[in-house]
Amino acid sequence: MIIVLKPQIAPEEITKFTDHLKADYEVKVNRWDGIHSTVLGLIGDTTKVDIEYIDAQEIVESVKRVQEPYKKANRKFHPENTVIRINDSVSIGDGSLHIMAGPCSVESEEQITGIAKSVQASGATLLRGGAFKPRTSPYAFQGLKAEGLDLLKTARKETGLPIVTEIMRVSHIDMFENVDIIQVGARNMQNFELLKELGKIDKPILLKRGLSATIEEWLMSAEYIMAGGNEKVMLCERGIRTYETYTRNTLDISAIPIVKSLSHLPVIVDPSHASGKSRLVEPLAMAAVAAGADGLIIEVHNDPPHAWSDGAQSLTPKQFDKVAKRVFALKNSL
Amino acid sequence: MIIVLKPQIAPEEITKFTDHLKADYEVKVNRWDGIHSTVLGLIGDTTKVDIEYIDAQEIVESVKRVQEPYKKANRKFHPENTVIRINDSVSIGDGSLHIMAGPCSVESEEQITGIAKSVQASGATLLRGGAFKPRTSPYAFQGLKAEGLDLLKTARKETGLPIVTEIMRVSHIDMFENVDIIQVGARNMQNFELLKELGKIDKPILLKRGLSATIEEWLMSAEYIMAGGNEKVMLCERGIRTYETYTRNTLDISAIPIVKSLSHLPVIVDPSHASGKSRLVEPLAMAAVAAGADGLIIEVHNDPPHAWSDGAQSLTPKQFDKVAKRVFALKNSL
Amino acid sequence: MIIVLKPQIAPEEITKFTDHLKADYEVKVNRWDGIHSTVLGLIGDTTKVDIEYIDAQEIVESVKRVQEPYKKANRKFHPENTVIRINDSVSIGDGSLHIMAGPCSVESEEQITGIAKSVQASGATLLRGGAFKPRTSPYAFQGLKAEGLDLLKTARKETGLPIVTEIMRVSHIDMFENVDIIQVGARNMQNFELLKELGKIDKPILLKRGLSATIEEWLMSAEYIMAGGNEKVMLCERGIRTYETYTRNTLDISAIPIVKSLSHLPVIVDPSHASGKSRLVEPLAMAAVAAGADGLIIEVHNDPPHAWSDGAQSLTPKQFDKVAKRVFALKNSL
Amino acid sequence: MIIVLKPQIAPEEITKFTDHLKADYEVKVNRWDGIHSTVLGLIGDTTKVDIEYIDAQEIVESVKRVQEPYKKANRKFHPENTVIRINDSVSIGDGSLHIMAGPCSVESEEQITGIAKSVQASGATLLRGGAFKPRTSPYAFQGLKAEGLDLLKTARKETGLPIVTEIMRVSHIDMFENVDIIQVGARNMQNFELLKELGKIDKPILLKRGLSATIEEWLMSAEYIMAGGNEKVMLCERGIRTYETYTRNTLDISAIPIVKSLSHLPVIVDPSHASGKSRLVEPLAMAAVAAGADGLIIEVHNDPPHAWSDGAQSLTPKQFDKVAKRVFALKNSL
Repeated sequence: MIIVLKPQIAPEEITKFTDHLKADYEVKVNRWDGIHSTVLGLIGDTTKVDIEYIDAQEIVESVKRVQEPYKKANRKFHPENTVIRINDSVSIGDGSLHIMAGPCSVESEEQITGIAKSVQASGATLLRGGAFKPRTSPYAFQGLKAEGLDLLKTARKETGLPIVTEIMRVSHIDMFENVDIIQVGARNMQNFELLKELGKIDKPILLKRGLSATIEEWLMSAEYIMAGGNEKVMLCERGIRTYETYTRNTLDISAIPIVKSLSHLPVIVDPSHASGKSRLVEPLAMAAVAAGADGLIIEVHNDPPHAWSDGAQSLTPKQFDKVAKRVFALKNSL
Repeated sequence: MIIVLKPQIAPEEITKFTDHLKADYEVKVNRWDGIHSTVLGLIGDTTKVDIEYIDAQEIVESVKRVQEPYKKANRKFHPENTVIRINDSVSIGDGSLHIMAGPCSVESEEQITGIAKSVQASGATLLRGGAFKPRTSPYAFQGLKAEGLDLLKTARKETGLPIVTEIMRVSHIDMFENVDIIQVGARNMQNFELLKELGKIDKPILLKRGLSATIEEWLMSAEYIMAGGNEKVMLCERGIRTYETYTRNTLDISAIPIVKSLSHLPVIVDPSHASGKSRLVEPLAMAAVAAGADGLIIEVHNDPPHAWSDGAQSLTPKQFDKVAKRVFALKNSL
Repeated sequence: MIIVLKPQIAPEEITKFTDHLKADYEVKVNRWDGIHSTVLGLIGDTTKVDIEYIDAQEIVESVKRVQEPYKKANRKFHPENTVIRINDSVSIGDGSLHIMAGPCSVESEEQITGIAKSVQASGATLLRGGAFKPRTSPYAFQGLKAEGLDLLKTARKETGLPIVTEIMRVSHIDMFENVDIIQVGARNMQNFELLKELGKIDKPILLKRGLSATIEEWLMSAEYIMAGGNEKVMLCERGIRTYETYTRNTLDISAIPIVKSLSHLPVIVDPSHASGKSRLVEPLAMAAVAAGADGLIIEVHNDPPHAWSDGAQSLTPKQFDKVAKRVFALKNSL
Repeated sequence: MIIVLKPQIAPEEITKFTDHLKADYEVKVNRWDGIHSTVLGLIGDTTKVDIEYIDAQEIVESVKRVQEPYKKANRKFHPENTVIRINDSVSIGDGSLHIMAGPCSVESEEQITGIAKSVQASGATLLRGGAFKPRTSPYAFQGLKAEGLDLLKTARKETGLPIVTEIMRVSHIDMFENVDIIQVGARNMQNFELLKELGKIDKPILLKRGLSATIEEWLMSAEYIMAGGNEKVMLCERGIRTYETYTRNTLDISAIPIVKSLSHLPVIVDPSHASGKSRLVEPLAMAAVAAGADGLIIEVHNDPPHAWSDGAQSLTPKQFDKVAKRVFALKNSL
């Protein structure tokens, strides 16, 4: 950690501050005096140094971390890729490509089972589907809830596909016991109370990036879960909010190689939410695989115009089949 | 709601779609045929029309709402300002100016009581203080929790100042029963499960704007609370995330007059979080009052360099006294 | 064009406004009356209707275009891809993939000729190099200027590679006569005076997207050039400015399929400027090709640490060779 | 300047790099060795050190400036406010408040003279009006050009108000000789060729902030003009591009106190372009003055619905009179 002091600070004040730092954080402090200002360098484990505390000092002009503030999610301290094994045939992060496919909302047994069979036939290895739906409007359909979870399990029984579904509330964790991967949505990426509780269970978590979360904040949210003991975290890039309004969000394709270099956790990409438009799903899915994603999560609906939510970005099973064929072919050619 | 159809749709398909709309939503549908495309206009209560369902139709090119999607928060249906009465001397939204002041984190009885007395002497009419703290890092101080709530109540007893503090979890609602105003933080603005539960209680809510929430999304989150029956909502602008990194966030000063015109709810401004720098608090507070804010929420700490959180943006009691004097003088001159 | 009127406008005012519209713009006007407001639909050629004029009317609440405001750049009126033929072996937009490679700044004959030969050997079909450099600081190296152009021509003579270089000023157009493709930089995307003059010459233009330009604004800038008569425009996505600071800019990968659908012009991607980091060039180049780009423009320097500008994002010839091999292999597999 | 090196660099490589730095830039280099990495500190005048060159070094992880990269615009080296004297009664930056008012486009002698008289009566001390108009569409009205400049001069003759108008092209500089303040528009903020030429003349420049320019980039553009010898620069905040679409841009109110502290140059605020909506001009103008602006630039049109451009954000003379009265009263009360 590097601390730049304001110009013309009295030497005794600098000494006092330096002594405090050494005592409070068990770090060594180096110092050099420039023409306009003095700079201090903290050496040691600065993960626990509160950067805001430093920044608040009257005598401090600016502070900069050299070391990343996350540890468990950091590739520096864990060079090997984390591989998340869901069952015998699904290992995410091992170099293979996995597609999680299914409808935005679970609507009926017929719907979810039908879609599950169809996406499985196209090569998807996991079934996604929403039972609890975070909706901007209180008047919009909020999901089938517990009944939706049951229907997902029925579809799993019929197809063998592990299921991925979103949690919205700490008190629902028990209900999700039988789910294979628990998804944390973009709007809950910094619902720290939820993250803490998910850190206490032993189940893979798919952590979506918040709409305006930096890569560092996203990794810090993964760190919240991992700090609690649950290290089975996958990171899902789903588009960020920018000034461009043509797409619902802007897929941050660079996040894939960046996260893979900063962290050892698998990276999944959601081209459906990133664009909000079904005809962009294919090119974005192709780009994500070419850039190194470990998996894709794609919305598929048997009848998009009649989907209860997110129809505009859903593929039909037939469209999905084409996308799946192309991305697997691409993956094989890399 | 206006629906633009894609070019060259067969007339019978348009008729079929139009019939569906009329049947599903009890709306009237007007239609006109342009050179390149056909446009439909829905007349009636379209609040419940699912814009995504419409957008998902194969034949639809784009959809635009004419009517806002929020009702209870909408000034059109509630022209009078909402006034939130906390006690005999504090009514927010009635044209007066109120300042909520206090430390980011409650740290000790001495600290909170001391600050409370001091900000009260400067003209603050409410005491703010964090007991549960949402922190980006799992390794940072997370607040004194229940003990912090107790200390706030002690400070209230000593000064008579109503207290404002942040909730982070549904299961804590009972604990907050004795709090005067419950704050929902920016990161929880779309924690819909929390909003729904806060809609069931009878207590003023201070709803902070999410880091990248549009004004419409923010009002929709207020609508969530109000739809449950709790109409005592105040909206707090606290800066949005932009590309500019000099300040922690960018205070959206325009949001004040916009929200006041779209909604009847009071608007509070948080210059401390908006800027992240104590020396910017004064000019931003002045600007907020000049632009029509109903109140300010300002971080004050007796010893900012030793604050346990957010020290960089806290004012000392003496600095706060100057700011308070200036903003009240400004308010009186308007 | 759809115009929503404010609530409760007197019928005679609406009639007066409608009559004006018909007279001023030779359009037909359809009208329907909703419960809260009246909506007007303009039918005919609305490209020349000034949306700001409409929006300024006292009685207007909002306006929305149905038809795009660009014509010459619009795929609707020009369904076939534009193919830009530079010489016998380079046709951009015909389904093949072309790479423009070279240093940020031309520095010496040896440097530019050496790099030209090396990138040609790796498969690049065009040579890029900056002679006039737009630099944020007036104290930074501003390019070799006319001498740089001469050196580029020398390198072209030696290798046969057509040259691409940036113009910064109208009065330089004559100097660029012998250049094969003239580049307009991101900071000049809305330098309308420059665009107008480039519309009068007969030479391919590579139009970079502005740092915060929407896709529509970008296409409107292409329209400026095309409206003058020069229809040889290529669009270059080079990253947009967002809140994320890990990369210099955020590559908007979705822009590729979107521009290809809205327009018939070729799309080139610049992974070097988009990321600002050489190690991200390969994954972004791969993603761009997978998403359908017609070409790439990549910075290559024989000695990046000693480049006079943009060294951080430059590849060495050896690194470039690897990237080129991978992207051509990918292109062949699609 | 602080340079963080990558982990595990060989000592001799560090020494070689350090020697280069000392030789190339005449700086002293301090060094300390942390646990994971080595940090170098450059002491001396680092304005001319090319941060990109440093960043490109193989062995460098990151670089951070301690000293600002601008000198002439920097308050550190020029603590007194710059005051720009236009005539006997107009001095901008001396603590007084000045309003530049007038139409977006000059349309006729009657129009511009009429507006000039009217805004003068309301207290405006400068007349603004566009003769050359930067328009997004090549099909939109582009201004009366030379004729517009003549009409502005006529209005000046009639009222004595100095005139402010926008330049778009280097070759027009002669034509602007008789103008009092030359405006550089947001889209030309980084048209470096134009900035350089404006640095050679002796005339006040009103430099608008680019749509997505950081405060540092904006000050660097001022530095371009000042480095050429023209130190009469005023900075104009006119809103930045963010994800929020309710307003055309987001007024960055914090920029006022920030620029006033980083630089000695006057700050003008443009509430008309910042919001794009006439009804927001008043609250934003009030906020700007409360936050410390030296002046305002406001669009006024005698007949906004018939303005040839920007009607939606123009005030009528009567509305302007009310705004002017309120902001001057506010200024007097501060």
